[in-house]
Amino acid sequence: MTDKKLAIIATKGTLDWAYPPFILASTAAALGYDTQIFFTFYGLQLLKKDVSLKVTSLGNPGMPMPMAMDKWFPVSLQALPGMESMMTAMMKSKMKKKGVPSIEELRGMCLESDVKLIACQMTVDLFDMKTEQLIDDIDYAGATTFFEFAGESDVNLFI
Amino acid sequence: MTDKKLAIIATKGTLDWAYPPFILASTAAALGYDTQIFFTFYGLQLLKKDVSLKVTSLGNPGMPMPMAMDKWFPVSLQALPGMESMMTAMMKSKMKKKGVPSIEELRGMCLESDVKLIACQMTVDLFDMKTEQLIDDIDYAGATTFFEFAGESDVNLFI
Amino acid sequence: MTDKKLAIIATKGTLDWAYPPFILASTAAALGYDTQIFFTFYGLQLLKKDVSLKVTSLGNPGMPMPMAMDKWFPVSLQALPGMESMMTAMMKSKMKKKGVPSIEELRGMCLESDVKLIACQMTVDLFDMKTEQLIDDIDYAGATTFFEFAGESDVNLFI
Repeated sequence: MTDKKLAIIATKGTLDWAYPPFILASTAAALGYDTQIFFTFYGLQLLKKDVSLKVTSLGNPGMPMPMAMDKWFPVSLQALPGMESMMTAMMKSKMKKKGVPSIEELRGMCLESDVKLIACQMTVDLFDMKTEQLIDDIDYAGATTFFEFAGESDVNLFI
Repeated sequence: MTDKKLAIIATKGTLDWAYPPFILASTAAALGYDTQIFFTFYGLQLLKKDVSLKVTSLGNPGMPMPMAMDKWFPVSLQALPGMESMMTAMMKSKMKKKGVPSIEELRGMCLESDVKLIACQMTVDLFDMKTEQLIDDIDYAGATTFFEFAGESDVNLFI
Repeated sequence: MTDKKLAIIATKGTLDWAYPPFILASTAAALGYDTQIFFTFYGLQLLKKDVSLKVTSLGNPGMPMPMAMDKWFPVSLQALPGMESMMTAMMKSKMKKKGVPSIEELRGMCLESDVKLIACQMTVDLFDMKTEQLIDDIDYAGATTFFEFAGESDVNLFI
């Protein structure tokens, strides 16, 4: 075990970018890292009780699509109605088949490992979000509070 | 106060991603952090005298749109002509109503707090930008110079 | 020279976002940094023998397009068939004209400078990639192994 610390700022609100903060945080926690994730901007979506994140390959030509086919999908087709929902369903199916836990499961693993999840109060106010929309067991704080932890951390990641 | 240091690499050039570097830098500076932001790639847009950044939800399904409605906007509608300008106007209006300073104001707060703003010389050359297009009170340097500061920093963030 | 360490997590798979990890890593290595890049998620594309990355300005209004013209391109035009290929060709041509090495060249410079390139084993399995598709001279490991290095690094960047 270690006495190291990991501070993550999670700012993205899509299905694909929901994995890195939770996977990295749970991995670090398993190694004994004292870990905190500060959810701000679109990242606040990851703290919702009802996680209904979507994925899009628009603006993201690096995504193998469909994920197993490993070739590009014409951008003109990606803009078709319904494509976003289809891709989201495909990604979820792929993840499940490969044994990757869902976002809800990964988030639960983080909480069980004492990873501290913090909602950015300023963003909550900005987006007119209600605390009832977000899961329990989280803290609410500002960037100032978070810097106290980040300034002492061994690893800082802006995701 | 603290003797800690924060080094930010700002690489995004959209309205929404312009906030994190300036908000985090001004917050850290207020806490006494010696702070530098290295603007490179698309991030160079944030140093323009005439900041005319846009926001798009394309490739960004995590963005509540309109921001207060907290529901998804069909990707096919987002590709319509004029949608980008409408969304940019909505975001600016929302920010103003909520009392969030504009990018120009946040940038000014950083300069007043002695945050060092550095334009990546290589990117300036690559994009054929003129120094007259960028605000005064900034430095021009390469990644090598920036690493001198980053290597001594307590917090490093790639935004 | 220095005894400092740089740890990069490379997660993006587009042509434009392929530059930052390789440029920063090769710069740091030239300064004497012990440097590792952990390629995960879409970033795994950067390790392919046949690098055929694309760039899109969709979801990326910060990109000057064409890069020298420094003005915005209507999002509705960007969704036209063939636009992505045209933009990719334009970016490659621009980079070459300005003397910026190609991704393959930058990657080679990293390997020659003893930058350690690590493919995330979990993502390789998830995307059903074959090791034959990826370049030689790389390691395969999980996030746990990477944290051993990251936890000791002076600079950590999530790209």
